[in-house]
Amino acid sequence: MDFRVLHIHDFNELNLSFNGLFFQHSKMSVKDDPESAGVQISTVHAGVHAGAHAGLHGLTGQRSASIALSSGGVWQDKSSSWSWMLSGFLLMNVVILGCALVSGSVFNALQVTSDHVQFFLIALMIPTVVWMIFYKVCTFREDEAVLYKDVHAGPVWLRGGLVLFGVCSLIMDVFKIALYVGYAHCDSPVKIAFPVVQAIFTLVQTYFLWLHARDCVQVQRIITRCGLMLSLATNLMVWMTAVTDESLHQTVYPSGNVSHSSHSLTVRASASNGDNNCECSYPACSIFEDAYYYLYPFNIEYSLFASAMAYVMWKNVGRVVDDHQPHEHRFHLRDVLVGPVGGLVVLVAGLATFVVYEVDVASDEQQKKEAALTIYYIANMVTVALMTGVTVAGCVIYRLERREHALGKNPTRSLDVGLLMGASMGQFTVSYFTIVAVLALGVDGTVNALNLALSVLTVAELLVQNVFIIEGLRREPHHESRRASVFSNLLALQAQEDRRSSGVLTPRGSITVTAHKPLPWKRKLLKEISAFLLLSNIILWIMPAFGARPQFDNPIGTDFYQFNMWVAVVNVGLPFGIFYRMHSVASLFEVYLKS
Amino acid sequence: MDFRVLHIHDFNELNLSFNGLFFQHSKMSVKDDPESAGVQISTVHAGVHAGAHAGLHGLTGQRSASIALSSGGVWQDKSSSWSWMLSGFLLMNVVILGCALVSGSVFNALQVTSDHVQFFLIALMIPTVVWMIFYKVCTFREDEAVLYKDVHAGPVWLRGGLVLFGVCSLIMDVFKIALYVGYAHCDSPVKIAFPVVQAIFTLVQTYFLWLHARDCVQVQRIITRCGLMLSLATNLMVWMTAVTDESLHQTVYPSGNVSHSSHSLTVRASASNGDNNCECSYPACSIFEDAYYYLYPFNIEYSLFASAMAYVMWKNVGRVVDDHQPHEHRFHLRDVLVGPVGGLVVLVAGLATFVVYEVDVASDEQQKKEAALTIYYIANMVTVALMTGVTVAGCVIYRLERREHALGKNPTRSLDVGLLMGASMGQFTVSYFTIVAVLALGVDGTVNALNLALSVLTVAELLVQNVFIIEGLRREPHHESRRASVFSNLLALQAQEDRRSSGVLTPRGSITVTAHKPLPWKRKLLKEISAFLLLSNIILWIMPAFGARPQFDNPIGTDFYQFNMWVAVVNVGLPFGIFYRMHSVASLFEVYLKS
Repeated sequence: MDFRVLHIHDFNELNLSFNGLFFQHSKMSVKDDPESAGVQISTVHAGVHAGAHAGLHGLTGQRSASIALSSGGVWQDKSSSWSWMLSGFLLMNVVILGCALVSGSVFNALQVTSDHVQFFLIALMIPTVVWMIFYKVCTFREDEAVLYKDVHAGPVWLRGGLVLFGVCSLIMDVFKIALYVGYAHCDSPVKIAFPVVQAIFTLVQTYFLWLHARDCVQVQRIITRCGLMLSLATNLMVWMTAVTDESLHQTVYPSGNVSHSSHSLTVRASASNGDNNCECSYPACSIFEDAYYYLYPFNIEYSLFASAMAYVMWKNVGRVVDDHQPHEHRFHLRDVLVGPVGGLVVLVAGLATFVVYEVDVASDEQQKKEAALTIYYIANMVTVALMTGVTVAGCVIYRLERREHALGKNPTRSLDVGLLMGASMGQFTVSYFTIVAVLALGVDGTVNALNLALSVLTVAELLVQNVFIIEGLRREPHHESRRASVFSNLLALQAQEDRRSSGVLTPRGSITVTAHKPLPWKRKLLKEISAFLLLSNIILWIMPAFGARPQFDNPIGTDFYQFNMWVAVVNVGLPFGIFYRMHSVASLFEVYLKS
Repeated sequence: MDFRVLHIHDFNELNLSFNGLFFQHSKMSVKDDPESAGVQISTVHAGVHAGAHAGLHGLTGQRSASIALSSGGVWQDKSSSWSWMLSGFLLMNVVILGCALVSGSVFNALQVTSDHVQFFLIALMIPTVVWMIFYKVCTFREDEAVLYKDVHAGPVWLRGGLVLFGVCSLIMDVFKIALYVGYAHCDSPVKIAFPVVQAIFTLVQTYFLWLHARDCVQVQRIITRCGLMLSLATNLMVWMTAVTDESLHQTVYPSGNVSHSSHSLTVRASASNGDNNCECSYPACSIFEDAYYYLYPFNIEYSLFASAMAYVMWKNVGRVVDDHQPHEHRFHLRDVLVGPVGGLVVLVAGLATFVVYEVDVASDEQQKKEAALTIYYIANMVTVALMTGVTVAGCVIYRLERREHALGKNPTRSLDVGLLMGASMGQFTVSYFTIVAVLALGVDGTVNALNLALSVLTVAELLVQNVFIIEGLRREPHHESRRASVFSNLLALQAQEDRRSSGVLTPRGSITVTAHKPLPWKRKLLKEISAFLLLSNIILWIMPAFGARPQFDNPIGTDFYQFNMWVAVVNVGLPFGIFYRMHSVASLFEVYLKS
């Protein structure tokens, strides 16, 4: 019989009463002393659970904290479940209604015009903007509105991407306004109102998410949850209509043959520019029209980014503490060479290929077009094959390495991994659809064979890269404790003591003071691999993000799945693929630092 | 300063060491003494969390248990995350590849024939069956393979439904075999092999899920997780192909006009019966063909049921204990009258309407058809309106009632609520699509107005019913402790003591010995409401389950969204709607017992 309860300190600092549902919470110095906060909190956990079995069984770590501690003092679980449910229903209803509207506008453009859809979007955007302002005012007024900021939420790449794509969206809106001002004399005013409202929405939302993406809000939880779900719904609807618009645009004016576009789609396209008799009042109109369609993909990305951030914020509402202490890592390239150099070579070669491809594929000669495709496929195949090999090596090293897994549930980390896995589905979908198409039509010709090989390799690469990133993120980081505080030293001592008495290694035991020693070969190799993968992912991001669309330049997809279906698959899948690559770059950077 | 740790008993019964990652666990009498198990377990939680802050912060309730206790003694988190990831990837890849194949078969029936799709399904079913037999052998051999059964998983309605729909699927397979034996001389052998394999798969899977749906498996976790995800993927693919087949069948031979069916779909339909020159070798063929198409909806339901059960099993792999004690409730109708009687009236009236509708709507006269639709809509509207009103009243009573919420995270309960919410999306989708169609075409004529009203009412009913059920399930049950054990009496005494000393009511305080007193009015009303809703949901289940399809009898949907789109929406949405109604009936029964 061997039972020990370790380290229950500081009970006196907490004022908790465990009778029934009500908990009271006096001052907790989360902000003032982040080092000790982690320990305090796990003490609360222990306390909550010890008390819990008086009738309240099995709270999860995160929720127990959010139930136990609240800024207002007494807090009932009722309102929480109520607000989750309410906001969930709000999202569900808005999105389903939106789907019906968009489907109607696609399949019956005469009865559901784009005006109706845009009116619906305006009706969503205005309340969202109003709520964001309300939120700003609320959190500004109350001191205790945001007790804690989730350091993992809203990382810099997400916020940076949001601003970048937001700016592109704004330019798109300006072009749209300019275009529809030209049609103002004969088209509906909704056409001008929509881009104006969208521009305001984009501005306010970007500002809002930039500042508040990390907030774990404590006040007005019901309204905040509903507001966040409303903005998630709005972004999803903007995404859906943008994808539909772009797909219809490509279907009506495809680069090659127009044979597949159905009657209703043509009607839609003409309806979207008003009546056929309606002419623009100034000559530069067509330039604006061409220009804004090029900016659609950025708007699609913007909506995806904003959706992801709103969802993370929604998950964080009411969260008080996170027992995951952020570790400080320094970025330096001291010990690595081959990885970054190899990655740079791939990056530069990829950029060169991209330029050649974009120039040649626009050519009218069929032969030049095929040559461009061949070059594109070969360059990508080499990149992806290298990445796959290197990643497999990395996974093997993880197997060899006996580094501990970071135990404990980190909600933001799980969310992050979920987003990574989810986003990879876009690329998977495009690849599998390509594989089926090529195999079914029979592999004849080099271009098709290369296309097939690239798709198969991409599937393999996505699988192993996901495994590599997830494994990498889940490992305990190697601490380079130059800034070791008194507290963590105490913990380390304690851990060593435990180890001696029990013969088992604790995670804290890995805290060592290794300031300038060269890295062991495994860590060095992992750093090389991460650096190489990071740079390779950048080039795989650049190509689709800046307009390479071999899926349309190669006619196999459109031939096999009729045009509409293929356009839908690619236009839904590719933006997720782009999101996935950006997310991978950020995650690989973290893996690099941790290794 | 007021801190108490209540009721930490029995530490000596547990052999836990908290140093680092490894936990050892000796015998725990979960099975032998269910009454005390709940308390023991929450004690473990307390201990785990108390120990956790030595380095492992913030485990959730469920995961902490699954990490802390394992049958084998030492257990590493590594394999768990690996098996989650691996099985997740398996599901993702199989389903996406399947999607690509099915899309290919729809949009390019010449290159991807139904033979290819069926071959793919056979290639999924055989490994699934092999795995299920392997699982059976494994758990049979090892005593400690299943330490704990989740009493909430695989409830009787789910298993009953599975068997019912499984039998129908088997009959369908027999019909298919009989049909394709007639074509054997000129069609591919895959056509016969597929229903044979599917019949074996259905038999084995029904047997497997009937016996093992509640298992929380401890051995072979990686293989088990992957096996369960494989069977989930297989069921999803069977569901997808069945929906596609049925939709194509309806598109090619619609009851009304055939104007919308496209060229490729016609090709597909003829291809699915072999070449056009291929003739059946015996005369009864066409009867079998007609018959098996009527059984498709049951096969679709079967796949949904099996998917839900496989998913719940997957979630339960490695789970050792549940801190939610099952409460014993007795079913009796002593105190209620109005609810059940009202419900029965609705049920009988509904059945009568259903019979009249089915007879009249098959008529060729347009007027008779419209009359049938009118009757159907009115009967449903009255039912749904009554349900909405009654449910709102129920929600108000919940607000008035000061019954405690069952705190603590119950994973099975959350899963259950998730399934309920998810399944309701099917009905939401059909309703919202109908609303948009009717509004866009303009409401002219009684039938359309009724259709619109019914759809709006259905949306409202779904919303309030979901709220009512979720609130009802989350309340602490009223204990009727006729079988109060010594242990619970002790707890009650303890609770009363606490109450006296602290002035706060504990949930345990509600344990009273109210054997035959009449119920208080709030509880009585809640029981009446649940009973009424239960019976009303049964009639709303019967109508679509046994073939009422006003969505196709009323031409508005097919007119507005072209035929293919509408068929897809209805064929995906309705089976979920049927699942939702069955799930609601079961949940309302539980709410009735708890009230």
